[in-house]
Amino acid sequence: MRQKRYAIGADIGGTNLRVALVDREGKIVERIKTSSTETDDVFDSLVSAIDRFYSDDVAGIGIGVAGVIERAKGIVKRSPNLPSVEGIGFIDGIRQKFSLPVYIENDANAAALGESWTGAGREFNSFVLFTLGTGIGGGVIYDGHLLDIAAELGHISIEADGVRCPCGNNGCLESYASARAMTGRAVESIESGTESLMKGCCEGNVYKISPEDIYSYALEGDNLARETLKTAGRYLGVGIASAINIFSPEAVILAGGLIGAWNIYVETAIKEASKRAFPEIYGSTKILPSLLKDDAGVIGAACLVFDKTNS
Amino acid sequence: MRQKRYAIGADIGGTNLRVALVDREGKIVERIKTSSTETDDVFDSLVSAIDRFYSDDVAGIGIGVAGVIERAKGIVKRSPNLPSVEGIGFIDGIRQKFSLPVYIENDANAAALGESWTGAGREFNSFVLFTLGTGIGGGVIYDGHLLDIAAELGHISIEADGVRCPCGNNGCLESYASARAMTGRAVESIESGTESLMKGCCEGNVYKISPEDIYSYALEGDNLARETLKTAGRYLGVGIASAINIFSPEAVILAGGLIGAWNIYVETAIKEASKRAFPEIYGSTKILPSLLKDDAGVIGAACLVFDKTNS
Repeated sequence: MRQKRYAIGADIGGTNLRVALVDREGKIVERIKTSSTETDDVFDSLVSAIDRFYSDDVAGIGIGVAGVIERAKGIVKRSPNLPSVEGIGFIDGIRQKFSLPVYIENDANAAALGESWTGAGREFNSFVLFTLGTGIGGGVIYDGHLLDIAAELGHISIEADGVRCPCGNNGCLESYASARAMTGRAVESIESGTESLMKGCCEGNVYKISPEDIYSYALEGDNLARETLKTAGRYLGVGIASAINIFSPEAVILAGGLIGAWNIYVETAIKEASKRAFPEIYGSTKILPSLLKDDAGVIGAACLVFDKTNS
Repeated sequence: MRQKRYAIGADIGGTNLRVALVDREGKIVERIKTSSTETDDVFDSLVSAIDRFYSDDVAGIGIGVAGVIERAKGIVKRSPNLPSVEGIGFIDGIRQKFSLPVYIENDANAAALGESWTGAGREFNSFVLFTLGTGIGGGVIYDGHLLDIAAELGHISIEADGVRCPCGNNGCLESYASARAMTGRAVESIESGTESLMKGCCEGNVYKISPEDIYSYALEGDNLARETLKTAGRYLGVGIASAINIFSPEAVILAGGLIGAWNIYVETAIKEASKRAFPEIYGSTKILPSLLKDDAGVIGAACLVFDKTNS
């Protein structure tokens, strides 16, 4: 039987649903992005998107989704940032609609797989990937393969008695270094009277401020915006150092929307990590940005299909 | 050629050097323990101990040693708690003396291997081991094999701006939950005037207090002793929760001298971890004590030999 040429990869995380048709070289042939993951119809949106790419030439469907996955059952057991997907039986549901093999993986794990296949991780045998967005996720490649572990790097406690996280823990890295942490801190400072150009943001509704806004104001020279990015970056560095001391990886790859603020947020993180990690390990660890950017998840999800089928 | 029956396993860590003759079933035939690791002659002590067990029936020598190992070169690159071993060329040196294959591994990694072979980890495909002693180490078994990572679980930061650790990081788990952290906190509290039976310890020299002493006083009902164990245990729980959220292991195995205080220190840790880790992961993770106790390291070191030689 002729080998089918494509896989459909889906990435359900943060505030977007991305679906793409991917070939066996890991190239995206076509993609869709919708912003429906915060509503209740994630499953329906996913089905519509898959339907657009479905053909006889599709070998299977891979799905990356934020949260703790029960792979065997194809269910998201827990997703603090995307509760609407909890309990959805993705594998059974999608298989029923399309009669194709379906695989599911945590979204950050899928992104790590994508970077390993055709992205910034290609040349490394081992790396730790952080997804830096609304939340913080992680994925670990070891000896060329994705480790089948939760890798919830956003939910390691970096302040034992710190703020309560929706996950139930206290002081999670995510609560100090994510997009949500940044915007929260900026708003709090403005509310408490700190002078900042950010007050004029979003037609006066500072509660709508985004990390991109904060970054723009920082580039304009706004002190609070700069400090907000640096504080978050410093905490990120604490988390990166722990990941380095645990995994002694060849590389740490940083992905997600926040790496747009590389020269303030990420550079602060790298500086902090360099002071904290065991120097003997840090010295042989490269820290670098994602190559695939927003496509890492769908490409990695498609990789699940090609790794697991010979069809 | 007849298969050689034994391996020599050595464990250099904390304050002791342990060396044992181990058979292919993982049974210890004979053991030596010396307390010389704090002196400068670790290498010489190791050679003498190996010499006692050396015979034609020994397949090789495995060495577990505290610190960051460069396996290929057989060197300890860094050992914050045992600086005297830094830079020693164990593999070359021992091979020269005995003309046998020599393998080296981090001591906690070796202990994990030992527990996996014949100890508390036998029935698990994946587990995280913590060694709880003067310092805190870690080792991770995944898919039945030792992960070749630093696994420096004692050096993840649980208080981003916490106390400075000799490793260079701030707020390391080890600085809050190890034997050294416990005795340090007890002495500090007594110095600052807290009432405690521990004042009468060690013929009046409270600076000599050991975790065993603290545990005895706690059992006698001393409040400060109890609080000291509970505080350290609570921090240990913070670290265990992070390890569970990262590795989603089938089990967490606790080893090292401190598990003697299981019913205060460890039980507090388990309670804290249960409140913090993702419930969906925690629910399928067992937390249990080492079976091999002080022998885990030498048995794991011997396992390195049998895993890697067919002699």
